[in-house]
Amino acid sequence: MRAVDCIIKKRNGEKLTEENINELVRGYVTGKIPDYQISAFLMAIFFQGLDFEETWMLTNAMISSGKRFDFNEISGIKVDKHSTGGVGDKVSLLLAPIAAACGCTIPMMSGRGLGHTGGTLDKLESLPGYRVFLKEEEVHSILAADGFVMMGQTEDFVPADKLMYALRDVTGTVESIPLIASSIMSKKIAEGSNALVLDLKCGSGAFMKNIHDAKKLAEYIVGTAKTAGLKIKVVISDMERPLGRTIGNYNEVLESAAALRGNADKRLAELTYRLAGWMILLSEKAASLEEAIGMAENAVASGAAFKLFLQNIEHQGADVDYILNPKTLYTYTKNVCAEKSGYITKMNSYNVGVASVYIGCGRRTKEDSIDHYAGIEVLKNVGDKVTVGEPIFTLCYNNGDVQTACELLQSAIEISDDKPKDSEIIFEEI
Amino acid sequence: MRAVDCIIKKRNGEKLTEENINELVRGYVTGKIPDYQISAFLMAIFFQGLDFEETWMLTNAMISSGKRFDFNEISGIKVDKHSTGGVGDKVSLLLAPIAAACGCTIPMMSGRGLGHTGGTLDKLESLPGYRVFLKEEEVHSILAADGFVMMGQTEDFVPADKLMYALRDVTGTVESIPLIASSIMSKKIAEGSNALVLDLKCGSGAFMKNIHDAKKLAEYIVGTAKTAGLKIKVVISDMERPLGRTIGNYNEVLESAAALRGNADKRLAELTYRLAGWMILLSEKAASLEEAIGMAENAVASGAAFKLFLQNIEHQGADVDYILNPKTLYTYTKNVCAEKSGYITKMNSYNVGVASVYIGCGRRTKEDSIDHYAGIEVLKNVGDKVTVGEPIFTLCYNNGDVQTACELLQSAIEISDDKPKDSEIIFEEI
Repeated sequence: MRAVDCIIKKRNGEKLTEENINELVRGYVTGKIPDYQISAFLMAIFFQGLDFEETWMLTNAMISSGKRFDFNEISGIKVDKHSTGGVGDKVSLLLAPIAAACGCTIPMMSGRGLGHTGGTLDKLESLPGYRVFLKEEEVHSILAADGFVMMGQTEDFVPADKLMYALRDVTGTVESIPLIASSIMSKKIAEGSNALVLDLKCGSGAFMKNIHDAKKLAEYIVGTAKTAGLKIKVVISDMERPLGRTIGNYNEVLESAAALRGNADKRLAELTYRLAGWMILLSEKAASLEEAIGMAENAVASGAAFKLFLQNIEHQGADVDYILNPKTLYTYTKNVCAEKSGYITKMNSYNVGVASVYIGCGRRTKEDSIDHYAGIEVLKNVGDKVTVGEPIFTLCYNNGDVQTACELLQSAIEISDDKPKDSEIIFEEI
Repeated sequence: MRAVDCIIKKRNGEKLTEENINELVRGYVTGKIPDYQISAFLMAIFFQGLDFEETWMLTNAMISSGKRFDFNEISGIKVDKHSTGGVGDKVSLLLAPIAAACGCTIPMMSGRGLGHTGGTLDKLESLPGYRVFLKEEEVHSILAADGFVMMGQTEDFVPADKLMYALRDVTGTVESIPLIASSIMSKKIAEGSNALVLDLKCGSGAFMKNIHDAKKLAEYIVGTAKTAGLKIKVVISDMERPLGRTIGNYNEVLESAAALRGNADKRLAELTYRLAGWMILLSEKAASLEEAIGMAENAVASGAAFKLFLQNIEHQGADVDYILNPKTLYTYTKNVCAEKSGYITKMNSYNVGVASVYIGCGRRTKEDSIDHYAGIEVLKNVGDKVTVGEPIFTLCYNNGDVQTACELLQSAIEISDDKPKDSEIIFEEI
């Protein structure tokens, strides 16, 4: 079938065949089908959707477009975690060593920060020498030694997703649930995982702003994963406020190290143990979620997770001295203080994330470089009592537009006389 | 606003501003906005539509993308007719001299045949020497002398429409009513008309297959034209069966010449006089439609229209001998005959049009050349009584796939014992 006929078929709301989808994806990757047909096709999908089966076909076609990892030499389940992206979200840094310490095998493929959200690769690269692009034999040997490996996506890894994501970004077709689902899953399956815990962020600082959209995406991912035979658990978690005590790169690595030594922000710990529990349970290393969570807590309490964390840092080329003897690699600090006394009732994490970009923690375009050592300390968060003039944030920076960052942080905060109700960090599990 | 933000705006069903639309069209024509963004935008329009005002803004932006004719030296209304395309549709060849003979000024911009439909330019070019691409001063002088001029679109004429039409053709975005409306109107307004009679064909051989879609397009065009200050009348006419007695190019010119001398197929005459009447009325050359139709009939009866027809042929470079002494420029003929006796109840004009393409009357791709002298004679049409073995069509041809053409023609016919009810040639006027 000609590409235009496939576009019209989807435009008219008909179901595509595996052959239709394979031809389009293969044609696109090999340059036989031009961008302008694929962008029209993606817009047709935006409006007409894809069912679970079509989403799986698309996912599979994207996987087939490039290299696929195979860790069959390690028996059993390979599990990964994916986050849809947030502000202060350092959970991956904690989860990998915790789950590995509990016997899981985790080939973890991560991304860079874009827009107001941070990225695990950028955080890890704040440790000088840490390499996220490894030779294939290194990936296998580090995974065997540490139980986890932290990787970036190479050029030949799911190229169809790379091409289509870049096209979606400039053609208004990002916000399509089946396209989001297939983009996430194609990478997770191609990296050699057969189980996945998805941390689906919801709130101002997340891609999904409301629980309705988040649940819809979750149902989609679960439905498609089942068609694919992938074990999956989706945890919808709060991203209305920033997660943890730091936003940035090196400072988040340090916060993670502290958390692995038992000094964790309460909500960060709760989310981490819950996600780790699901990873352990999906990996069949525990009989129940309660047992799995207990194992995760023990891995921290015993120091086993922190040990693996350090071991991996060395295996991937960095110096643990950056963890054991934290450095101060920024020049200036500036506090953003409470303008009145009361309880913090809101802290818009989108604004906080954008503020962090203004002092260099993130990129405004893909080509921008970042300052790994700039960051924001979140001294007070939602529910905390503050008195007028008391610092809520500390900006640590070398350059950037600090004025704008401060204004954004100030505008992110709402203070009221009444203590807000505690809100759960985990909204729903699907 | 960035192109992607305009796409998202329309995708979300919001109304675009004139600035949004102008930036997109100008950006596209100048190469600053790539095909892949425009195709996504067009697909968003397919789903979300454009209102009358947006359609007019798009029309206007397309007009501004290139050269615009100006016939202000001729006072009064400049009127044109446009047909959405049909099989055996030679009405333009008749209308121009008839309306001109009644005092109208008609700068007529026509197209080529594509697919199963014929094109006025191809028909005229069957007269050796007839030039449809004229110098600007020739356009003005011929219009002044004959009251009408027959023109093809040059490269610099509404280039945005050319680009967007080619893109729509390969991205499944042809069937959008506001896009069809703006494509038609941009060309008619750019050619210098301020009044338009639209012959909106409806039926198997037309773009609009049913009256519902045809009325929707008609309402759109009328609504947009009113916003534009363009005088308009839309006539929805029957294209279920072929129009007139011939399908082809030279043979249709000869049928037109015969009709201008008073020997016209009944339905062809009825439609022609009605459309001519509206052109005359919109041009304010008559006080009522009845008076206008009477004037049109007189222009034929008096020979004035035929005289202008011949005069124009000479002015545009061809020899009237091809009209006055018809030539036989095909080698073979073949009849397609009734397989049983009875009344013809149906004649699928789409099939008839495709059959004509198989013997060279039309193009399968834009690059194909055509045989101007091949053609089909329609000896019997819907409502006529036939006896088994009696010829219904005669194919006149030089080469091509005659076998397939005959099969298509045979399959186009339905014969029944019961005489079908007369159906009107004009369905509706809006």
